[in-house]
Amino acid sequence: MKSAVEELKAQGQAAKAASRRLANTSTDVKNKALQNISEDLIKRKSEIIAANKIDYKAAEAAGMSAAMRDRLMLDTARIEGMAKDVLTVAALPDPVGEMIEMRTLPNGLLLGKKRVPLGVIAALYESRPNVTIDISILCLKAGNAVILRGGKEAINSNRALVKIVQEAAARAGLPAGAVQFIDNTDRALVNELLKMSGVINLVIPRGGADLIKFVAENACMPVVTGGIGVCHLYVDKNADISKAVAIAYNAKVQRPTVCNALDCVLIHKEIAQSGLPVIAAEWAKAGVEIHGDKRALAILKANASLKVKSAVPADWGKEFLALVAAVKVVDSLDEALVHIERYGSGHSEAIVTEDYQSALRFLNEVDAACVYANASTRFTDGGQFGLGAEVGISTQKMHARGPMGLKELTSYKWIVFGSGQIRP
Amino acid sequence: MKSAVEELKAQGQAAKAASRRLANTSTDVKNKALQNISEDLIKRKSEIIAANKIDYKAAEAAGMSAAMRDRLMLDTARIEGMAKDVLTVAALPDPVGEMIEMRTLPNGLLLGKKRVPLGVIAALYESRPNVTIDISILCLKAGNAVILRGGKEAINSNRALVKIVQEAAARAGLPAGAVQFIDNTDRALVNELLKMSGVINLVIPRGGADLIKFVAENACMPVVTGGIGVCHLYVDKNADISKAVAIAYNAKVQRPTVCNALDCVLIHKEIAQSGLPVIAAEWAKAGVEIHGDKRALAILKANASLKVKSAVPADWGKEFLALVAAVKVVDSLDEALVHIERYGSGHSEAIVTEDYQSALRFLNEVDAACVYANASTRFTDGGQFGLGAEVGISTQKMHARGPMGLKELTSYKWIVFGSGQIRP
Repeated sequence: MKSAVEELKAQGQAAKAASRRLANTSTDVKNKALQNISEDLIKRKSEIIAANKIDYKAAEAAGMSAAMRDRLMLDTARIEGMAKDVLTVAALPDPVGEMIEMRTLPNGLLLGKKRVPLGVIAALYESRPNVTIDISILCLKAGNAVILRGGKEAINSNRALVKIVQEAAARAGLPAGAVQFIDNTDRALVNELLKMSGVINLVIPRGGADLIKFVAENACMPVVTGGIGVCHLYVDKNADISKAVAIAYNAKVQRPTVCNALDCVLIHKEIAQSGLPVIAAEWAKAGVEIHGDKRALAILKANASLKVKSAVPADWGKEFLALVAAVKVVDSLDEALVHIERYGSGHSEAIVTEDYQSALRFLNEVDAACVYANASTRFTDGGQFGLGAEVGISTQKMHARGPMGLKELTSYKWIVFGSGQIRP
Repeated sequence: MKSAVEELKAQGQAAKAASRRLANTSTDVKNKALQNISEDLIKRKSEIIAANKIDYKAAEAAGMSAAMRDRLMLDTARIEGMAKDVLTVAALPDPVGEMIEMRTLPNGLLLGKKRVPLGVIAALYESRPNVTIDISILCLKAGNAVILRGGKEAINSNRALVKIVQEAAARAGLPAGAVQFIDNTDRALVNELLKMSGVINLVIPRGGADLIKFVAENACMPVVTGGIGVCHLYVDKNADISKAVAIAYNAKVQRPTVCNALDCVLIHKEIAQSGLPVIAAEWAKAGVEIHGDKRALAILKANASLKVKSAVPADWGKEFLALVAAVKVVDSLDEALVHIERYGSGHSEAIVTEDYQSALRFLNEVDAACVYANASTRFTDGGQFGLGAEVGISTQKMHARGPMGLKELTSYKWIVFGSGQIRP
C-alpha cells in the first residue's frame, strides 16, 4: 500500500507539471491529439476488444446482471461510435483563451476575463469504459491534465483505452503525464487522492449515490456532484395527450437505468381520467410497473393487464433506475410545483402542456439543472445538448449546472492592459 | 446558547423561504429596494453615526490601532459614499433572467442557460461596517437572501445598518426575511452556521487568513475563498521607469493594509542599477521598509537614508499588510515567472514593460485572478472593475475568480422549449 500511495503522489505531481504546459498548448496540437486518439481507437480496436473480453468474462463469472454487462461491453460498433464522438469534440471551438466581457474603463484600462483551464481534474467513475474516453478528451481539449480512476469491473478495458489515449496524445506533442490512470482498484487509494488538494483542482465523482456522497464528504478540494436524477413529468390539464404518452414512454423506457430517466408522473385531475390509461397502456408494452396514489389506482384498476401497486411514501422522491414509475393525480400546476420542489433532486423536470402560461410558469419556477416544456428528460446529456460529450451532470448550483462539457472544465482570469494607470 | 442556535436555524429557514420569492421578484422591485436603502442611509445617518460612536469608543478603550479604528469609523461623507454606491448597483443590469447561449438544435429544441440566483448566501466578515451594505445590496439585486455575520467590533454599526436595509427593502415589497443579521458574536454560532448546508448555498468568508481557513475547512456547503494577496510587481528590463516608480508607490503605499497592496518587487538586473534607487527613494517618502536580496542591497546601500534590511526566506511569499516590501533582482522574465508561480497567492500580479512580447507572455503565463501590464495591482476591486461593488475577491478557480459582483452571485439553469421531442 505504501508504494501505491507513493506512486499516486508521483502521478499527481506529473499531472500538475503537465497541466502547466497544457495551459499554453495550442488548439492545433490539442485537436491533433484528439484526431490521433480517434484514429488509434479504430486501428487498435482488437486490443480494446481483447481486454474488454477479460472484463466481460469476469463479470459473467461474478454473476453481474445482463444490463450491467451490457454497459461494460465494447464491440466494433461501439468503438467506432467512440471514435466518432472524439472527432465531434475535436471540431468544437477551443474554450481556452476566449475573452469574455472585454471592455475599456474610463481611465483607459482595457480589461476582460480570459478563459483558462482549471488545472488537474480527477475523475472517479464506475462500469462504463467509454467514460474513460469522454473524460480524457474533454479534459485535454480544455487544457487540463486528468487523473482517471475507473471501476474494477472495467480495469482491463480502461487500461487498454488509456494506453491508446496516452500514446496518441504524446505523438501529437501533448506533455507526457497529461493523462494519468490509477491502475489499482484498492479503495484506500481513493481516500489518499481526496487529500491531494495541492495537486488536484477538481474532483468529479461519476457513479452511484454512495460514491458521490463519499467523495463530497471526504474531498479536501472542490467537487462537482450530480448524477442523481429524481425526474418528474407533469401532465397539465391542457396537455396534448399524444405528446404526453410519447414523452412518458421515451423518458421511462428508453434507458431506465440512467439518471435522466423518468421516475414520477404527476397528472392533472381533469385529464387523468382520459390520459392516464393511455400512458399506462403504452408503458405496459415495456412492462413498466406503476406505483400509484389512490386516485391513480382508482382510474387504472379497470385494466387488469397493467402492473399496478399502491404507492408507499418512499416512492415519492425515489430514483427507481428500473422499469417502475410513481404516478400521482394532482389538483393543479401549483400542487405539481410544490411536489417537485419537495421531492425533485434538481436534475431534470418536464411539463407537457399546450397552455402558454403553464409552460412559462413551469420553466421559470422549477429549480432544477434542466427544465423542459414538451420534451423528454432523456435529452439531459452533453452530446444531446451539443457539447460533444460530458464529464458528468451537475446538480449543484456552484460553478456548473447540468451537463458539463468543455466550458465547464475551465476557469478564467482577469487580464488588464494598462499604460501606467494608478488608483486615485 | 441553545436558544441562540434555535434562533439561527429559524433565521436560516426564513432566509430560504425568502430566497424562493426573491428568485421571481421583478427587477423594478429590487431596484426600488436599493433606491430606498440609499435614501434611508442619508435620512437616517444620525442613527448610524450614533451607533458607530459606541463601537468607536469601545475600540479606543480596547486599544485598537488607529488604522483599524479608521476602518471602523463612519461619518457623513462615508455614509454619503455608501448611499452613492448603492445607486450605482441599482443602475447595473439585473443578472437574473439573462439568457446565455440560447440556440435551436437540429431536432427543433430551443434551449439555453437562464441565469438564476444561488439562493441563500452567508457572509462572515470583520471590522468594516460598509461591507454590510455592499454584500446586502449585491445579494438582493442578484435575487439572493443573505445571512450576515459581522465582527463584534462593529456590532452596533452593523445592527443600525441592517435595520435600515431591512426596513427599506420591506417598504419596496421585498419578502421579509431576505436579509438576516446574526446579532450575536459568539464564535460557536459560526460552527452551527457552517453545518446548515440544507439552507445555505454559499458561504463567503471575508476577513483575515485565520477566518478564511477556518471556514474553508469546516463548512459543509460550498465556500468561495480569497482575499489573501501576495502581490508581485515585475519591472522588466525594457520598463518605463517612471511608470514603474508610480505603480510601485501606488500599489505599496496608497493602502498597505489591503489584499491588493504590493508585497514584492522583482526587478530585471539590467534595469536594477538605474531603476531600483528611484523606486526606493520614492518609497522612502512614505517610510517604506525594504527587505532586499543580496543584489538589491548592493545597489541600495549607497543611500544611507533608506530603510533597508536583508531579506530572510520568509519574506518571499509574505503578505506584509504594512509599509514593508520585499525586493529581488532577477536575471530574466522567466526567473520572475518562476518566482511568482512559487510564491504568489493567485491574487494580483503586475509587469511594467514597454516590450510587447514580455507583456503578452506575462499576461498569458501568470496564473492569478488578476494579471496586469503597466497598471497598479490596487485596481483589483469590484468598484474599480465596474461591478458596482464586490462581496469579496476569489483566489480559487471554481465558480468565480477575482472580484465577485452580481453575476458571480448567480447560477444558471438550462431551459428547453420543445414541441413533443423524444430522444431517438
